[in-house]
Amino acid sequence: MSRPIPVARRLSKAWLRGACVPYTARRAFSAQVTGSRTTDITALKVNQDRLMETLHQTCSWGTGKRWGSGPNDTGMSRLALSDTDKQARDWFVETTSSLGCHVKVDAMGNIFAVRPGRREGLATFAGSHLDTQPSGGRYDGILGILAGVEMLKTLKDHQAETEFPVGVVNWTNEEGARFPISMCSSGVWAGDIPLETAYNLREVGGGTATMRSELERIGYLGSIPASHKSTPMAAHFELHIEQGPLLEAEKQKIGVVHGVQAYRWFMVDVSGRDAHTGSTPLGKRADAMLLAARLITHSHRLATKHSAVASTGILSLTPGSTNTIPGHVRFTLDVRAPADSTVEAIEADLKRDFAALAAGENIQGLLDGATPSLPLEVSWRTDSVSPATLFHPDCIAAVRASAEAVTGDKSLVRDMTSGAGHDTVYASRHCPASMIFVPSKNGVSHNPEEYTSPEDCALGAQVLMQSVLRFDSMRASS
Amino acid sequence: MSRPIPVARRLSKAWLRGACVPYTARRAFSAQVTGSRTTDITALKVNQDRLMETLHQTCSWGTGKRWGSGPNDTGMSRLALSDTDKQARDWFVETTSSLGCHVKVDAMGNIFAVRPGRREGLATFAGSHLDTQPSGGRYDGILGILAGVEMLKTLKDHQAETEFPVGVVNWTNEEGARFPISMCSSGVWAGDIPLETAYNLREVGGGTATMRSELERIGYLGSIPASHKSTPMAAHFELHIEQGPLLEAEKQKIGVVHGVQAYRWFMVDVSGRDAHTGSTPLGKRADAMLLAARLITHSHRLATKHSAVASTGILSLTPGSTNTIPGHVRFTLDVRAPADSTVEAIEADLKRDFAALAAGENIQGLLDGATPSLPLEVSWRTDSVSPATLFHPDCIAAVRASAEAVTGDKSLVRDMTSGAGHDTVYASRHCPASMIFVPSKNGVSHNPEEYTSPEDCALGAQVLMQSVLRFDSMRASS
Ligand SMILES: [Zn+2]
Ligand SMILES: [Zn+2]
Repeated sequence: MSRPIPVARRLSKAWLRGACVPYTARRAFSAQVTGSRTTDITALKVNQDRLMETLHQTCSWGTGKRWGSGPNDTGMSRLALSDTDKQARDWFVETTSSLGCHVKVDAMGNIFAVRPGRREGLATFAGSHLDTQPSGGRYDGILGILAGVEMLKTLKDHQAETEFPVGVVNWTNEEGARFPISMCSSGVWAGDIPLETAYNLREVGGGTATMRSELERIGYLGSIPASHKSTPMAAHFELHIEQGPLLEAEKQKIGVVHGVQAYRWFMVDVSGRDAHTGSTPLGKRADAMLLAARLITHSHRLATKHSAVASTGILSLTPGSTNTIPGHVRFTLDVRAPADSTVEAIEADLKRDFAALAAGENIQGLLDGATPSLPLEVSWRTDSVSPATLFHPDCIAAVRASAEAVTGDKSLVRDMTSGAGHDTVYASRHCPASMIFVPSKNGVSHNPEEYTSPEDCALGAQVLMQSVLRFDSMRASS
Repeated sequence: MSRPIPVARRLSKAWLRGACVPYTARRAFSAQVTGSRTTDITALKVNQDRLMETLHQTCSWGTGKRWGSGPNDTGMSRLALSDTDKQARDWFVETTSSLGCHVKVDAMGNIFAVRPGRREGLATFAGSHLDTQPSGGRYDGILGILAGVEMLKTLKDHQAETEFPVGVVNWTNEEGARFPISMCSSGVWAGDIPLETAYNLREVGGGTATMRSELERIGYLGSIPASHKSTPMAAHFELHIEQGPLLEAEKQKIGVVHGVQAYRWFMVDVSGRDAHTGSTPLGKRADAMLLAARLITHSHRLATKHSAVASTGILSLTPGSTNTIPGHVRFTLDVRAPADSTVEAIEADLKRDFAALAAGENIQGLLDGATPSLPLEVSWRTDSVSPATLFHPDCIAAVRASAEAVTGDKSLVRDMTSGAGHDTVYASRHCPASMIFVPSKNGVSHNPEEYTSPEDCALGAQVLMQSVLRFDSMRASS
């Protein structure tokens, strides 16, 4: 085969403003550019049909709940390090290897597939995750990985050569759905989560498997350390569905993500006293479920007051019998806001008001019309603190330039802050990073009906590839 | 051995007022009455030490959670038809047989132990249940059976002979904790619950066992029909812990139970939409957990308004992930009031207000300070309807007379309505029946720390025995 094409050599600052930037090519890689050694970075096109076909094929591993009658109208249930996650991983390793990548697996099962460039150096990565929520969809995480693979295929199709290596990384257990720390393995890579903490995470739902035992079981306990020191990256770009309603509501196509909201996860324990529902008058109760219901109701009021969001996604109670007043309830509270200071303020309000409500104080009329009860106790555990993250201006600029070039219409491009955490947050602590959002139908995510149109998926994949190539060019030129 | 003593022959109406009534005895049964053929019905005394020792011994089958350091400071977890329930049943059969009873087991595993009287006829029963809540105590149900056995022992000690047979009945799966219909097998006996419904009840928590398969497995699928027609009773008395705080609060010792509150059990389903907690603004949510919290908060307000009680003892949500807004919540609602009409009125209010709250209407300020959300749906299923029950005046009178005689102080005796359902409710549909309550420490029940002092247990057992004997005497005299 003839030698690969260098995609870019020199870039002026013009590309940062979205201009079409010339680059040198040893030989043309498409009919349009035949005979030209200088061509348009935008001429490399991902293949929408191939992208979507491959995406849906990989969704045969861990297919979830059916919600419609179409062949792909099913969700996903591919928990991290499950048998179906292993199948998706095996496919990823085989496919990227066959596309000319060197594949490395680290001690957390993160898989780094690197395609060599003209020069030695760190790779610019496209990254995301192949694991899903137990009742998730076909796009969250999966699209980011599949778009990365499509980038590799497109580069190979055109025998395109990048200046430095480019790669795709699959991060382990991003969802935190099976092993309850989200972005767990990029967190270990970043040095923010101790390896032992991650290894000892036990699967939720009472099973005995740990992350370590499952990594070992499915053959993804890699030999290289899970660390940004062992596997540094030049940059990290992530294409992801928005998981929110804004792009769709504004009829826009691409979100240029400037950073991620701050959030904190709490576990709240409410302790009262088990008692018989029939023989215990309202005034003699310490009803943990009733207090929990009031606390959740109140958390929403406080979120409204602070222009933040608060959510309870897990609640369990004991003993759990129709005719027994629960003596104990435990629930999660997920609090998010664009600024760290807002999250801190709402946390302080929540702690003050929850204690007051437990003691029987009427906060904002919540106890109006209620029978005073015995006092209860509320205790808090902080499970996760994620400060607000600001992405790197170079990466943000690369994404914006690519988005404007690909869409050809600035009004279709939106600057955004991500409400959800992503592996890019941890990546961004040790390399320049940014993200690209594409619309989520009805803003729905973590749901089988999660949907992004093939056109939007391909548009996002195109912006992802261009962002990686632009960043690579920028490095070469600097 | 010499021939047994007839406990009673003729009774005037005087005993109904608590007078000490003479009866004929062939020979004296205690030192105090030696040489006398006419003695006091109150002279038969249960043995407190033996009662409590035996009770705690039987609690070695199915011992539950430890809550204190004393030898008996553990709760009970003896689910119906479990291996430990079988052990308790085997003990009951052996013990009552050895005390001279004929023992019959019906098709629901109800065990009827009958001690012959001087004459043929239906037996007057003391009845309750040996099964417990998963996190129950040592007294609920157990005390009633153990007091019945202590009655049989006391009668045997004194070779006392009743006019008609007396017996003890252990009803299967009263708690409804393992197989989710409470008072299940007295309900079948009464003809209110179809045998097939009971047989097909599947154990809660996802197991595959049914009541029928478990009855068969532990050898208690009896050959006689479970029916009041096959096993009629002359009367049914039940000694039970109050499971509420009133006797203790008023420093009283015996509750004369006139009937049982009406109650209805509902299953409420709240349907919204799963969505990501971080990327879904409050206004774009259909948060099933938030709505459920408001509904539970509101159910308490309505209960207060109607002087009723409402309780949520089970709540489950899906999908159950910290960062996913639950799209679906299901919870139980247990509503009780002394009158059927009150329960009907609160049900109507609940259904109207729940629908309004789901549609976003602000009921009683519950949505003050909240962000309006997308509409949700609420659906209802009625799982149980138990009308108010009034016990039989003869049995109530027998209990009151016995309670006054045993305590010697009318002020220690309280007329009550039971908040909880009991097997006596079903029994009362086909024979005269009543109940006796003894104090529950702190009103606590369905909890390992459920406690009634040995003195109060024995006092209750004494009243139970006297009530049975008084009823037997009354029949003989009428
Ligand atoms: Zn994701
Ligand atoms: Zn009971």
